[in-house]
Amino acid sequence: MMNHRIVLASRPEAEVGPEHFRLEEVALAPLAPGRVRVRHHFLSLDPYMRGRMSDAKSYAAPQPLGEVMIGGTVGEVVESRHDRFKPGDAVVGMGGWQEIADFDAGVPGALTKVDTSHVPLSAYLGAVGMPGVTAWYGLGRIIEPKAGETIVVDAASGAVGGVVGQLARARGCRVVGIAGGADKCAYVTGELGFDACIDYKAQAGYKALTAALDAAAPQGVDGLFENVGGVIMDAVMSRMNAFGRIALCGMIAGYDGSPLPITNPRLVLTQRLKLQGFIVSEHLEVWPQALAELGAAVATGRLKYRETVAQGLAAAPEAFIGLLKGRNFGKQLVQLA
Amino acid sequence: MMNHRIVLASRPEAEVGPEHFRLEEVALAPLAPGRVRVRHHFLSLDPYMRGRMSDAKSYAAPQPLGEVMIGGTVGEVVESRHDRFKPGDAVVGMGGWQEIADFDAGVPGALTKVDTSHVPLSAYLGAVGMPGVTAWYGLGRIIEPKAGETIVVDAASGAVGGVVGQLARARGCRVVGIAGGADKCAYVTGELGFDACIDYKAQAGYKALTAALDAAAPQGVDGLFENVGGVIMDAVMSRMNAFGRIALCGMIAGYDGSPLPITNPRLVLTQRLKLQGFIVSEHLEVWPQALAELGAAVATGRLKYRETVAQGLAAAPEAFIGLLKGRNFGKQLVQLA
Repeated sequence: MMNHRIVLASRPEAEVGPEHFRLEEVALAPLAPGRVRVRHHFLSLDPYMRGRMSDAKSYAAPQPLGEVMIGGTVGEVVESRHDRFKPGDAVVGMGGWQEIADFDAGVPGALTKVDTSHVPLSAYLGAVGMPGVTAWYGLGRIIEPKAGETIVVDAASGAVGGVVGQLARARGCRVVGIAGGADKCAYVTGELGFDACIDYKAQAGYKALTAALDAAAPQGVDGLFENVGGVIMDAVMSRMNAFGRIALCGMIAGYDGSPLPITNPRLVLTQRLKLQGFIVSEHLEVWPQALAELGAAVATGRLKYRETVAQGLAAAPEAFIGLLKGRNFGKQLVQLA
Repeated sequence: MMNHRIVLASRPEAEVGPEHFRLEEVALAPLAPGRVRVRHHFLSLDPYMRGRMSDAKSYAAPQPLGEVMIGGTVGEVVESRHDRFKPGDAVVGMGGWQEIADFDAGVPGALTKVDTSHVPLSAYLGAVGMPGVTAWYGLGRIIEPKAGETIVVDAASGAVGGVVGQLARARGCRVVGIAGGADKCAYVTGELGFDACIDYKAQAGYKALTAALDAAAPQGVDGLFENVGGVIMDAVMSRMNAFGRIALCGMIAGYDGSPLPITNPRLVLTQRLKLQGFIVSEHLEVWPQALAELGAAVATGRLKYRETVAQGLAAAPEAFIGLLKGRNFGKQLVQLA
């Protein structure tokens, strides 16, 4: 039986291109004892993968060259040599960019059964998966919003940003999204129910962004969930109220080139801000509670999300490049089966 | 009876010069009921005053033009129309840049009696005053150092930095100072007992600073008490360990011109750093405990400090300009009586 997989062929110096990936066909070895074989239905594409492609100092070891690209996956057990799993089980794991993966089911957390009776399988890669928990943690544990406060989130139509804003609205906050394009902004205020959304393509640059913020957040900004960095972060920081909190989740604007500065860090001092970076995989203790809340919210329709689905493993590199450029709309997935 | 005072004559656009101040002689009105008249012995000069001279958005209202420059003072009561004070009492307050000040003794905290039997009067403007509590708060409440961790503080020979390092040493940390000049570094490691000190004038620029840090902090940096900003902050941030904490107390390097950026804020994400600005005057609840600990440490000789004393009110502007340029050595005071 053959498997198809995508490996990291070379490390990008600047922008990621198709040449940094290689599609391979390999034969599957017989399943070893204690292991479980999963046919992937969906592969998750996420901005953090860009960091793993470089070998710069980071929180995680770089993705090794010539090995399967890391990535979250959902699928169905097709063969099991472990008591806890049987063929047909719906599961989530870090199976990587490949059609079929073998998991060591004895490793805690390596493979988790999921219930698809009320939550679609793909949602376990988005609102009820890592992106959802990221939103839940950064908002709830770092920003700690209070009712009546104003919360800003950029990449607002994305898998993380959309959840951030809806959770903040549910806590009684005024929520302002920032997204690229009129269609994304219409979705953010319409379907997701944000109070306002700023189109950073129409309001380009520091001056236009701050003017838009003054209109959208007339009371200033108390919490910022930051996914982008650069001029967007600078603009929102300039509008932050005293004792504002910034959860630094990503800086996708700078992933491809030189690091983007924070232009005026003195604001951290004069406004007594807290800026904190976090990696959700280091806070496993919150996952059960977060996933239970997020799953219930999706099942009951209170938490909405959108997906962009590329078809077939070979489409993954182009879809990932599009994600880094903001071409996706909501959670970017690759459908494999 | 005549008083002499220094008022803000104009707001600096860039560097502060003597022309921004004006020395005035004014007649003292008779002391009003409920008020206490104090002859100042020492005036404190502190970097925060630079911020007040501008009218940019900040945590405090700008210093009004034509009014007495704000500033902490210690002195002796010369006349009292309030029950709690009598002539001869040693007191600390915010009397400003003038020889004599009248205080409304009914305002809580406006004027505080101090005990000079074991602690010199001037220390209440330094190690046992606002700078000491600033060090105590930023280290203890934001950095929260654990024994064995490495703590870096810049402006290490200054009124705040010297206390930060000694308190961190007392908690079992490795302490690395950064100061300008061989004499200051010798004092920091010799008299103050830091483990190492980097002379940022000898090791100028990012590359030399990071090389010096690699030698002085071979285990990386867990906590940074930041008084300076700019390239020094960039260099230390690049050496921070995962979950490092940065207490942002000041950015004196940028006070005179354009804001200095944080060049690589992505480190906040990849190293999961916490960066927090604070203003010690907003945490009055800690002052009694902090001052008790700092006073005991000074009285018993465990906490050391150094002072640079300018003589006479007219010398204050030049001394302040020198402070902004790092010409002082330890706490900068002006002796008025």
